[in-house]
Amino acid sequence: MTDSSDNHASAGPLTRAGRSRRDVLKFGSAATLGAVLGGGAVLGHATPAPAGSTGLLAPNEPLEILIVNYDGGTLLDFAGPSEVFHRLPNTNVRYASLDGGNVTLEFGVVYGKTERLADIHRTDVILVPGGSNLSVPMRPAYQAQIRRLAESAKHVTSVCNGSLVLAATGVLQGKRSACHWAFVNKLAEYGAIPVPDRFVEDDNGRFMSGGGVTAGIDFALRVAAKLRGQQAAEYTQLVIEYDPDPPFHAGHPREARPELVAMVDKKLPGASKGLARIPGVR
Amino acid sequence: MTDSSDNHASAGPLTRAGRSRRDVLKFGSAATLGAVLGGGAVLGHATPAPAGSTGLLAPNEPLEILIVNYDGGTLLDFAGPSEVFHRLPNTNVRYASLDGGNVTLEFGVVYGKTERLADIHRTDVILVPGGSNLSVPMRPAYQAQIRRLAESAKHVTSVCNGSLVLAATGVLQGKRSACHWAFVNKLAEYGAIPVPDRFVEDDNGRFMSGGGVTAGIDFALRVAAKLRGQQAAEYTQLVIEYDPDPPFHAGHPREARPELVAMVDKKLPGASKGLARIPGVR
Repeated sequence: MTDSSDNHASAGPLTRAGRSRRDVLKFGSAATLGAVLGGGAVLGHATPAPAGSTGLLAPNEPLEILIVNYDGGTLLDFAGPSEVFHRLPNTNVRYASLDGGNVTLEFGVVYGKTERLADIHRTDVILVPGGSNLSVPMRPAYQAQIRRLAESAKHVTSVCNGSLVLAATGVLQGKRSACHWAFVNKLAEYGAIPVPDRFVEDDNGRFMSGGGVTAGIDFALRVAAKLRGQQAAEYTQLVIEYDPDPPFHAGHPREARPELVAMVDKKLPGASKGLARIPGVR
Repeated sequence: MTDSSDNHASAGPLTRAGRSRRDVLKFGSAATLGAVLGGGAVLGHATPAPAGSTGLLAPNEPLEILIVNYDGGTLLDFAGPSEVFHRLPNTNVRYASLDGGNVTLEFGVVYGKTERLADIHRTDVILVPGGSNLSVPMRPAYQAQIRRLAESAKHVTSVCNGSLVLAATGVLQGKRSACHWAFVNKLAEYGAIPVPDRFVEDDNGRFMSGGGVTAGIDFALRVAAKLRGQQAAEYTQLVIEYDPDPPFHAGHPREARPELVAMVDKKLPGASKGLARIPGVR
């Protein structure tokens, strides 16, 4: 088994490192991804994965993706992935919450017309996004539905601190997982293995996860490449013009100015240790 | 007047260029942004803009941002900016559509509880996101509301092909604007000046715009730096973990494989010339 995250894992705990090192990691991980896909090629020149090469799902089989919604969730945690997934061939994206209907996300944003989790028989991919308050999805009834769907899913995925919600169900026991940098080490409290990286996979892609909020876009493109082939992923990246150009080097404690990390620590004590507290998590 | 986009504008029409050149542009534009902000410093070390230095809005004044929603819009076009804007100090983000209530976005995604445009007296910032079908916001009643609010706004902004909606109202006459790469040159049909870049500003920030879909995140961080100060923008970038790491070099025709651009051209004739057709646009 080769995890594309292995290249990143060596970065270890949260430390400050220059952009140049990060770029080396970036190219390394992309090359490994090519190998995982089975095309044996690197950046932009790999062929789609051979059908069934992972023993999971061939790119031409219909794909069902379920996004778990809940009150207190963060819009961008799933809006990035949903924008990618909706554009993939032969792929159906559904949204569900415990009671169905509208959910009220962080900042009072209303996301509408979700299905009821209990009405979903099964799904190929389950995605649990994160939020600013995890009290609702940590409730036993939510946890039971997420556990049921995750156990029968081919791919169990999460973005941001949605990984804590998933880990709390027990399905990430002994599995490597990403999470928002401020919460990543809390994964250990639920028996998962924290990996402070932007994309992580384990068990040859049965488990895939992304870091905080915007990492959902990078996560989704990697999931897309794995499940629908690299060409579909690249096409989607082109259509959503994902050619990022952040104005500052401030997107991770590794490169942000220390006073900014201190500001987060003040608001979310424990953040710089990856142990920030959040409602719903012990 | 110094536009941070000037560094990018020299890139000219859509051509393929290597990542290294792009990185040079990236650092150049960030340095210029620092200068625009008035801190006289570069990446990560500028001080907040002095109050009123742009003659527009001081970082400590309350800020009202209005996001225009409509049936057929694209979720990520505004989900990126909204995730940034909601986290800024002293900033209120509102959502409105012509009739208020729910809007049905691209792919049937339901976005809820918008206000009625007619009920919004004025706003400091108006943001028009793009969509896959612009028929609705191109209707005269929508156009009249957008024009009214844009004319009285301090900052007139758009993301993706929302720039076409804004330009159709006439408020971008003679103004430089960004747009999704597949549609950017259609801006000229409405009297605006197409700039094939990820972030563009004109009139010292009265007009600011972003490229396609995911460009809304970069756009919003630059708007945040300009209106709330660089520290607030960097803090937000850290909280949403915006440290992008795309798996492929496929996010823009400048670097995507030609066969991918050809695929988009097949689905959206004229795309590679920046002249793709879209419902609602002549």
